[in-house]
Amino acid sequence: MSGWIIGVGVGPGDPELLTLKGLRIIRQADVLAFPAPLEGPSFARSIVASHLDDTRIELPIRMPMQADRFPVQAVYDRAVTEIGAHLEAGRGVAVLCQGDPFLYGSFLYLFARLSADWPVEVVPGVSSLTACAAAAGSALAARNDVLSVMPAPLADGDLEARLSACDSAALVKVGRHFSRVRSLLLRLGLGDCARLVVHAGLPDERVLPLDGVDPGEVPYFSTILLHKRGRAWL
Amino acid sequence: MSGWIIGVGVGPGDPELLTLKGLRIIRQADVLAFPAPLEGPSFARSIVASHLDDTRIELPIRMPMQADRFPVQAVYDRAVTEIGAHLEAGRGVAVLCQGDPFLYGSFLYLFARLSADWPVEVVPGVSSLTACAAAAGSALAARNDVLSVMPAPLADGDLEARLSACDSAALVKVGRHFSRVRSLLLRLGLGDCARLVVHAGLPDERVLPLDGVDPGEVPYFSTILLHKRGRAWL
Repeated sequence: MSGWIIGVGVGPGDPELLTLKGLRIIRQADVLAFPAPLEGPSFARSIVASHLDDTRIELPIRMPMQADRFPVQAVYDRAVTEIGAHLEAGRGVAVLCQGDPFLYGSFLYLFARLSADWPVEVVPGVSSLTACAAAAGSALAARNDVLSVMPAPLADGDLEARLSACDSAALVKVGRHFSRVRSLLLRLGLGDCARLVVHAGLPDERVLPLDGVDPGEVPYFSTILLHKRGRAWL
Repeated sequence: MSGWIIGVGVGPGDPELLTLKGLRIIRQADVLAFPAPLEGPSFARSIVASHLDDTRIELPIRMPMQADRFPVQAVYDRAVTEIGAHLEAGRGVAVLCQGDPFLYGSFLYLFARLSADWPVEVVPGVSSLTACAAAAGSALAARNDVLSVMPAPLADGDLEARLSACDSAALVKVGRHFSRVRSLLLRLGLGDCARLVVHAGLPDERVLPLDGVDPGEVPYFSTILLHKRGRAWL
């Protein structure tokens, strides 16, 4: 019996947005690894919790959840050692990844380390981008549109240059950058065609025009969607 | 009983990349609508075929499949009339959409017409973007990368400007534009960090360096992925 490791995109939060393949891999795994805060439950695990019983080894990868800080690399070094031991022992390991593993996923830190020694597969997931678009009832891209996905923590000048080179945009990781980004979008005349999407697909999902947002209440995992043609995509 | 209509992203082609929610909606629907060529089977329907029996009304939206041509609007006008009649009769209608409905989906043509009169919901799907990244074992975006998604049919000057304003890119709808786009990428020094992904997630999936591609053999639904840092994303 030989070990295997697969990164599984579990989607943006709605447990029903898990794929059939993701569910099969999770059920087949001997070990489930997932990101988790230093204390308390893991969001990625909670998405698939209804499919779990007590028959799997669970390996939470605990780290401080600091918005805007890239994670402590020693955490991943340690996780890779633990996962490697399971693989050597012939176990199948599924790594749960919120959204999609290859789109801003912390899974990339594991993948970069493990793929040197093991074949690491990935099951793609529903990304928060398409979930936000579904929540907003709004096209990410139509016809020959250029869609640009950019992190809100970037400096204003960078955001402005990239916003000028696209037809539609998704600004991710908005959080405490909301006020600054809103000011920028208003200055560029893009405020009216933009909306903030919070917790897409979850029971507390909200889609708000920018002027209806309290900047103190914007979670890290929020996204601003904008299309320069407004709702006249076609 | 009142009618309902939901656009369902069925993923890029692997039947297992359907979501649990997509499967539930398809099973609950009285009517399945899906794009189809003038003759022969529908690719979107084939993705979910194993879940279907003969109990649903099937409504193929048949149109000429012409690469690079935007579809004949009269086809959608007619489809909307048919779908509207089912909704008026109190039936639930699921519209099958390859990939995600709001990312270059032909569903947008139906959505634009129907959403004026009916609440149209969307179930997001796994997009071809994340499926291509999984096939290539390659990050779409890491850390604070800007990812730009652009259709290959755009003119060289437009592509060049947009490629200069991102860290990573996905060029979609490559098809007969391959030779021209490859030349452009080579001229920009981006050839080595780019790969062509064909039929991601399907049995005949291929991931090829650009110099290993026969330009006469590139299907319309092919994608070039590139990351300017190569595989040194982190």
